[in-house]
Amino acid sequence: MNFASDNTAGCHPKIIQALADANDGRRMPYGRDDETNRVRTIVSDTFDTDCDVFLVATGTAANGLALSACVPGHGAVVCHETSHINEHEGTGPAMFTGGAKLIGLAAGDGKIDPAEVDHGVMTGRGDEHYAQVKALSITQLTERGTAYTVDQISAIGDVCRKHGLAMHMDGARFANAMVGLNCSPADMTWKAGVDVVSFGGTKNGALALEAVVIFNKALAAEFLYKQKRAGQLLSKMRFMSVQMEAYLKDDLWLLNARHSNAMAKRLADGLGNIQDVEITQSVDGNQVFPRLPAATVERLKAAGFLFYDRGAGPDGRHLIRLVLAFNTEPADVDKFIATAGG
Amino acid sequence: MNFASDNTAGCHPKIIQALADANDGRRMPYGRDDETNRVRTIVSDTFDTDCDVFLVATGTAANGLALSACVPGHGAVVCHETSHINEHEGTGPAMFTGGAKLIGLAAGDGKIDPAEVDHGVMTGRGDEHYAQVKALSITQLTERGTAYTVDQISAIGDVCRKHGLAMHMDGARFANAMVGLNCSPADMTWKAGVDVVSFGGTKNGALALEAVVIFNKALAAEFLYKQKRAGQLLSKMRFMSVQMEAYLKDDLWLLNARHSNAMAKRLADGLGNIQDVEITQSVDGNQVFPRLPAATVERLKAAGFLFYDRGAGPDGRHLIRLVLAFNTEPADVDKFIATAGG
Amino acid sequence: MNFASDNTAGCHPKIIQALADANDGRRMPYGRDDETNRVRTIVSDTFDTDCDVFLVATGTAANGLALSACVPGHGAVVCHETSHINEHEGTGPAMFTGGAKLIGLAAGDGKIDPAEVDHGVMTGRGDEHYAQVKALSITQLTERGTAYTVDQISAIGDVCRKHGLAMHMDGARFANAMVGLNCSPADMTWKAGVDVVSFGGTKNGALALEAVVIFNKALAAEFLYKQKRAGQLLSKMRFMSVQMEAYLKDDLWLLNARHSNAMAKRLADGLGNIQDVEITQSVDGNQVFPRLPAATVERLKAAGFLFYDRGAGPDGRHLIRLVLAFNTEPADVDKFIATAGG
Amino acid sequence: MNFASDNTAGCHPKIIQALADANDGRRMPYGRDDETNRVRTIVSDTFDTDCDVFLVATGTAANGLALSACVPGHGAVVCHETSHINEHEGTGPAMFTGGAKLIGLAAGDGKIDPAEVDHGVMTGRGDEHYAQVKALSITQLTERGTAYTVDQISAIGDVCRKHGLAMHMDGARFANAMVGLNCSPADMTWKAGVDVVSFGGTKNGALALEAVVIFNKALAAEFLYKQKRAGQLLSKMRFMSVQMEAYLKDDLWLLNARHSNAMAKRLADGLGNIQDVEITQSVDGNQVFPRLPAATVERLKAAGFLFYDRGAGPDGRHLIRLVLAFNTEPADVDKFIATAGG
Repeated sequence: MNFASDNTAGCHPKIIQALADANDGRRMPYGRDDETNRVRTIVSDTFDTDCDVFLVATGTAANGLALSACVPGHGAVVCHETSHINEHEGTGPAMFTGGAKLIGLAAGDGKIDPAEVDHGVMTGRGDEHYAQVKALSITQLTERGTAYTVDQISAIGDVCRKHGLAMHMDGARFANAMVGLNCSPADMTWKAGVDVVSFGGTKNGALALEAVVIFNKALAAEFLYKQKRAGQLLSKMRFMSVQMEAYLKDDLWLLNARHSNAMAKRLADGLGNIQDVEITQSVDGNQVFPRLPAATVERLKAAGFLFYDRGAGPDGRHLIRLVLAFNTEPADVDKFIATAGG
Repeated sequence: MNFASDNTAGCHPKIIQALADANDGRRMPYGRDDETNRVRTIVSDTFDTDCDVFLVATGTAANGLALSACVPGHGAVVCHETSHINEHEGTGPAMFTGGAKLIGLAAGDGKIDPAEVDHGVMTGRGDEHYAQVKALSITQLTERGTAYTVDQISAIGDVCRKHGLAMHMDGARFANAMVGLNCSPADMTWKAGVDVVSFGGTKNGALALEAVVIFNKALAAEFLYKQKRAGQLLSKMRFMSVQMEAYLKDDLWLLNARHSNAMAKRLADGLGNIQDVEITQSVDGNQVFPRLPAATVERLKAAGFLFYDRGAGPDGRHLIRLVLAFNTEPADVDKFIATAGG
Repeated sequence: MNFASDNTAGCHPKIIQALADANDGRRMPYGRDDETNRVRTIVSDTFDTDCDVFLVATGTAANGLALSACVPGHGAVVCHETSHINEHEGTGPAMFTGGAKLIGLAAGDGKIDPAEVDHGVMTGRGDEHYAQVKALSITQLTERGTAYTVDQISAIGDVCRKHGLAMHMDGARFANAMVGLNCSPADMTWKAGVDVVSFGGTKNGALALEAVVIFNKALAAEFLYKQKRAGQLLSKMRFMSVQMEAYLKDDLWLLNARHSNAMAKRLADGLGNIQDVEITQSVDGNQVFPRLPAATVERLKAAGFLFYDRGAGPDGRHLIRLVLAFNTEPADVDKFIATAGG
Repeated sequence: MNFASDNTAGCHPKIIQALADANDGRRMPYGRDDETNRVRTIVSDTFDTDCDVFLVATGTAANGLALSACVPGHGAVVCHETSHINEHEGTGPAMFTGGAKLIGLAAGDGKIDPAEVDHGVMTGRGDEHYAQVKALSITQLTERGTAYTVDQISAIGDVCRKHGLAMHMDGARFANAMVGLNCSPADMTWKAGVDVVSFGGTKNGALALEAVVIFNKALAAEFLYKQKRAGQLLSKMRFMSVQMEAYLKDDLWLLNARHSNAMAKRLADGLGNIQDVEITQSVDGNQVFPRLPAATVERLKAAGFLFYDRGAGPDGRHLIRLVLAFNTEPADVDKFIATAGG
């Protein structure tokens, strides 16, 4: 009964099967194989536009490499202060970009306000004393479990174009956001102004699969050299590629995301009916951020539930994070609710 | 009939099985799981000493991170000019170390001469105009298919200790070298002075598995932070760990290496009996570097054999590289020999 | 009538004279000369302790190199959000340190609150997802013109020792702060816990002279290699060294700082008597931050006064920065006051 | 009697005078002053084309920044193996470029052979396993004291254009080479295909003055940000600019170079007449590389002459380096010859 993260789950059996199926025969290494050649087509079809696709093993690598395509070492990236790139990847973004700065904006729901970007963050442009803002990164789902609407993304895309910023989306939970918004991959990305996506599969049922998907050809030009030097070009690349193929085939990714989102709704609805429990953020995907009495948190822990506890606030209640996975059992959700309800 | 590289093979079925077996249930991510906890013990047992073990997805990452534990950005690493770190990882080592320089020594058999290190490469030590030599890296098997003997490694180890250099071994083909030498992992590493090994599994039957194994505790102290920022800390780490477990269990790694080495011997023996074919390097592992007439090379290509052709030398014959894998069929080897023999 | 910065002044005539006096004869380059050998003694005498001294050409270089001695690429430096390293050196600190993150704390007077450091910034220590806080940097004078008292520095020093942080002081206006506090160099630095100082001379009358002064020997060990690779080891180093000699000789640096501080007091006192003018920060050195009516600001500009105008606040008044130099004329200060007074 | 380097000299009195003359009055900092504005025009006039000019304090910084304009972190720079960037700047080039590799070619006279570049160094272009060669750097004068002729530079320039390489010239001894060739600045640079020059002044009589001169506008676009973050943008920039003005005014730079070159010829001619002394390289500028009997070297050292002794060769004679300066006295040269002659 682990609600700590969606990456505490294993992977979907179809992913394992895909690895097994791809194991026969020999392939040229480093992506010069048929499976990898197909991935570009498959992902381009998914996004309804021709795009460049690079498969890597972790989200930190996907984000770091994606940012390195957007910003030089003397540049800066606007992001939300709670974003994964700013808080949870050590100094990875600086390593991959050669020193670029992250400028973290604040807002309670984890979303960047385009007006704030428009008015404020261009400070120092053209002044060599400042890191030059050249890119903006949004996280979809945000680290608060909320999703930018397509209109919100477009509004930020407009600001990016106005100021000549490359626009990156950290889509570690891309599918959860998209399913929640009931929009297409294209709607949520290039049609709204996004240049590069870190398209995550691992949290949604893959084994280890993140893709950097680049819509803006200019940013893809030298990407392969960066991927290689960063140690992210796997030799037996077919095993990455078939994960992607299986992930996108027969809507597996959508089914997985719909399930985890549904589990999140079920959990939020159940918790929301309990006295003294507050659901603090809109549940737009597969994460729930409730505030509960300390005693309730204790009871949940004692019952063996695992989750991140962000500690007590001024009123003594704890903010906790609950993340639902593609294979979370409804019974476990219900048991959590029942335990919380006392 | 692909002899281009050992990484053109898939992985051993036991590796796939291990992934499937590990898929049930939930685990805390980023290596905070039981399987990963076990890996340290298993690898320490294999090397017959307590060591720190970090699993990463590629050889370039293993080497880059290993070097970053050995040398600062103002440092230099002595290596062979043909070494993978010097020739085939783009500018990866500089990226991971923050700018360290590689100093490539030359020798026909791909091995560093300890006397050359002793006499020459300390040039500039203590002189701030020079990159400071702080580490040495050997490749075992070398890029010429030869293996350093244990005595040769020890002799280099002595030079390293004399000059205060950290000693790294790029063991992308560790098992092939060790099996060829008929020595223990300990003999070939820490007992001979090696501080850090890039312990490769992928080329010898794993799916994507490289380990940085550190014998010198001081070098391991902050390694985890470097691994994370470099995007090499996989969230579902159990799937890395069980590969290692399966790889080392029941001598799978040794059986795989013995097979590919035997195939290399068989190939070299067969080719060596053909007129005008010269086996240019000692076949110490699973690589063969023959020189053949241009017509023979053409005939082999026409027959569908894949391999790296390094082109014609002064006598018109071509130097080619043949690499045998854990699952190379003897029949394919024999067919290659027969085709080469005309 | 330039109040934009203290570096808009030329240098003190004694500095030029020192350059001229040092011009005869030949010296071994890169600091292997008598003048440079003397500098270590002179600065050690000034700080009343044996210290390592490295002369560089700019404050950005001094800070970047100083931080590179304190923190690895996977580390983080706590600083004030308005600090020069965080706001006005582009991505220099990340370049020099190989990627370290700056964590900017907020406070109205430009000073770090040690309690905030103690309680908050150690978040993520030992957790590889976070940049590891390994150093803290204070700016003395702060960017708000205020000076940390010796007690305040000591309190921060205590927190640094408690948490094992290296402590850096950006002393671009070291002399102004010290003269304002009426303390000794030792009081304000190593006796209060400071490990490394960027000891600035340029803003206080030198031509181009910044020194990294290191009290903690361990941090100095490989500094020279970093200085060289960063392009900060001047070949004709004697011309840096004699600046330092002249700067410290016969209290030139103290006299210069006393003058500019006195001019700041004179200016603040005069402005403070004008209606609708507010001196927003304690004037602890040679900077004054008044808030004035827009019309006053316009009048000052029209009269030819140069200064940084940070724009209108909610009440319509402008916050401006006025910096006084070692050679600012009292008459110019008085003229400014008179113009502001209408 | 120091022949160790040209940077063992002080600077020309006119340089000191220029500093003194520029000391009055206030200027906006960081190059926003009249003197710096003039430099661009003056240097453009000197090179007979509009160019971008950035003044920095050291040759290592000039080279590092120049290369960072030419090559990304995943790139490589072809140079001579004896070049200053490859041998004497620590790991500076990797630091400034974010990791680019230097590929050192060999040749006895210190010059790159364009045919070798054409045939060989493009190895790996388009193959992500290799650092991508994107620039070439020549040193003029070379580290052997020889000068590329204008035709030789043009031939290399042709190869660079053919392969799309940016071409850099390390002109630490630019004036000495140019005076030796009796050509114009334009002939030796952009007319021959050079994109960026590290235009050195320090070794030829300035105090601390190196300029990055960029002919290819595209390479200059973001240079200022790189210069700032690298700590090479001096606040009191006027003192850099007036050095350049004085250096180029009334042919000071040419007179200085002619003098040191003449002294080199005088020294080489005198030594060449001594039995058992061999002048090993063409004396094209202000450096002489004689080979002398060990006893002669001892005698010279005993007489107080300072120079770099590269040790005994197979025949027991020592190769030494003698560098003449703008202010070397003919009498000292003659005394050296006389002492060498026994």
